[in-house]
Amino acid sequence: MSAAPSLAICGGKPRFSDALAIGQFYRPEWARYEEAARDIFFRRYYVSQRAVGPLVVQLQGRLQDFLGVKHALPVGNAAVGFMIATHVVGLRGRVVVTPSLSAEAAQSLAWSNCRPVLADIDPATLQVSTASLRSLLKDGGIEGLLVPHCCAGAAPVDEIEALASEYDVPAYYDATQAFGCKVSGRSVGTFGQAEVFSFDATNILGMAHGGCLATNDDALAAAFKAMRGDHVVGPGTSVQSATARMSEIQAAVALMMLDDFEHNRDNNQLQHRCYRDRLRNTPGIRVLRPTGASYSNFQNVVGIVESEHFGLSRDQLIAVLRAENVTAEPLFSSPRAPFGERSDVEYDARLLQGAEMAAQTTLQLPIGGRVTIEHIERICDVINEAHVHADFIRSKFGR
Amino acid sequence: MSAAPSLAICGGKPRFSDALAIGQFYRPEWARYEEAARDIFFRRYYVSQRAVGPLVVQLQGRLQDFLGVKHALPVGNAAVGFMIATHVVGLRGRVVVTPSLSAEAAQSLAWSNCRPVLADIDPATLQVSTASLRSLLKDGGIEGLLVPHCCAGAAPVDEIEALASEYDVPAYYDATQAFGCKVSGRSVGTFGQAEVFSFDATNILGMAHGGCLATNDDALAAAFKAMRGDHVVGPGTSVQSATARMSEIQAAVALMMLDDFEHNRDNNQLQHRCYRDRLRNTPGIRVLRPTGASYSNFQNVVGIVESEHFGLSRDQLIAVLRAENVTAEPLFSSPRAPFGERSDVEYDARLLQGAEMAAQTTLQLPIGGRVTIEHIERICDVINEAHVHADFIRSKFGR
Repeated sequence: MSAAPSLAICGGKPRFSDALAIGQFYRPEWARYEEAARDIFFRRYYVSQRAVGPLVVQLQGRLQDFLGVKHALPVGNAAVGFMIATHVVGLRGRVVVTPSLSAEAAQSLAWSNCRPVLADIDPATLQVSTASLRSLLKDGGIEGLLVPHCCAGAAPVDEIEALASEYDVPAYYDATQAFGCKVSGRSVGTFGQAEVFSFDATNILGMAHGGCLATNDDALAAAFKAMRGDHVVGPGTSVQSATARMSEIQAAVALMMLDDFEHNRDNNQLQHRCYRDRLRNTPGIRVLRPTGASYSNFQNVVGIVESEHFGLSRDQLIAVLRAENVTAEPLFSSPRAPFGERSDVEYDARLLQGAEMAAQTTLQLPIGGRVTIEHIERICDVINEAHVHADFIRSKFGR
Repeated sequence: MSAAPSLAICGGKPRFSDALAIGQFYRPEWARYEEAARDIFFRRYYVSQRAVGPLVVQLQGRLQDFLGVKHALPVGNAAVGFMIATHVVGLRGRVVVTPSLSAEAAQSLAWSNCRPVLADIDPATLQVSTASLRSLLKDGGIEGLLVPHCCAGAAPVDEIEALASEYDVPAYYDATQAFGCKVSGRSVGTFGQAEVFSFDATNILGMAHGGCLATNDDALAAAFKAMRGDHVVGPGTSVQSATARMSEIQAAVALMMLDDFEHNRDNNQLQHRCYRDRLRNTPGIRVLRPTGASYSNFQNVVGIVESEHFGLSRDQLIAVLRAENVTAEPLFSSPRAPFGERSDVEYDARLLQGAEMAAQTTLQLPIGGRVTIEHIERICDVINEAHVHADFIRSKFGR
């Protein structure tokens, strides 16, 4: 074997001087932002008391066209969007979810007094296992489904819709990570009773904390709008509102992001391909193609680490990458991770083998607006060197 | 009597070409806003995932100093602030409120499955009637108090604290309208278990939808932070969060507003005095001085209309003013107004005489950043002319 590797974990200089984080983090340039901010400022129309602003109205129309959905209702805060959606969709009692549910969707269940019941995921796709879903529904007592689309792909919507219909339970989707994804040409945002998007900065359509609820159901849309606070007082007032209208500046940024969607998506795809190419011949690591979607936003890159072939465990590889200032994360750290310290999550660990496997072996890597192809080449070099020097690293840092 | 009055309701030209609305609506000038937005943009720090931004941290310190309170925790959305506060303060079951509760505070009760019980207000101060409060507590079954400070003044905090302590129920305050007000030199924000401020544009410290929770209680502050989403995952995660961190641009505007607080407050005071001076000799209308506070933000002007002396009812006067493009509103349209269509609000109409009176006779008038002394002189001219021509207006337009 050669001399000690130059990896930072072995004492070398970190390959990145600044931390390279996971997430889209794209931003339109300052001149566009300034122009929008100036317009809003002089129109004196940040967030209206009793109506939504002109840019929010414009965004709503653009989102509806883009998604091909009847209602795409912007909200200033995706967490509140989930709270409202969970309430208006009518989730109650025991609700089936998966371990890749977003924190915001998970928290919304607490606000509606729902009890989460964990379904397993398919180890090949990382989407919900329809076998597990069917089995939980068959056992009885399930009152709703809240299913995430995972890893820049999509959940098996056809099977889920069929099961929801067969067992007559409401189903909606956590589309946090799936803006712009399609299933057989049909956009995520059009499935189930509703879908909630998060416009967090880590997503391909990102602006501080915003989101939107997409649905083809007029009654749900009306209930959602009443709770969002379109009418603070007067007829149509919801007794349980959350005053979560989107601000004009959020809408302005979202409109720019929408203009730039194809550019960012194509850029993500090139980066995703670069990871696949550079790691194609590395034993024990496999970069997953987005699953379940005919068209992906490629906003996530997920690898599966098989330690017996790679030579290091997934966690050891994460430590190697972090030493280089590269943020790398599991898809989720445990099947019940989205629920934090909540103690009443229902699950049978023996029936969550796909999820347990994913918790041990998945690795999310940086992709997006702050990442370049050259960065990815350096990251893949680190991974390849870690594989080559796996024995040395393992012996030195303990397994 | 002279010829037909020139009031718009009698066919004259409206005195104001644009609607003059109620609310502070002050804004710092564009140059300051642009500088802040540029800094934030290039620092790439809108809203962090796992921490609050530097301007939010700065704002928190400034607010704590300003209010003289241990914790003043900014939140991106006051409605969510109330939801979190109601939950962490631990309001449950039947909670006493008053008819001037804000919509946001009212809605938070629905999210925590609380049932509102209406206390009366004191007709002289428009603050909660402590006699009514005591009587409801004596009757039993009350599990908490959520009391608003009203009309640029303050609730009778000493009596409320004593009652909360005597009956051992949690009490917190809806301080939506009371930023900067003091009671015997002590700031609103330091009373009860906590107080929630709204930074709505209609308030003296205003930026789109923000707010803050003020408390001297370390445990409440920690619980509030966990629910606000300071930690999305990991230790300290709340199972019932709402991810409502304030954005940096909101904090930037709030800091400017805080710089300009004294200026705006003094300006409001001059405007308030102008209303009192100009209407001093008008029979049947009395401009209320802020009550319960040793120091007021003067962000509201409330008049009481006695129709038998003024010659028009309060609603007739509102119609006269609206015809001139002046927004004028009751303090609340009915005692149960904050609860919209909620059907389970508990109250005994016979015991709400102060509130019924206020619903019939109160009149809020424009004051604040978009209003000038000259505007107020014109508004008072309209009111005085309406009084002089009351018989004519009444005979022509209604009963």
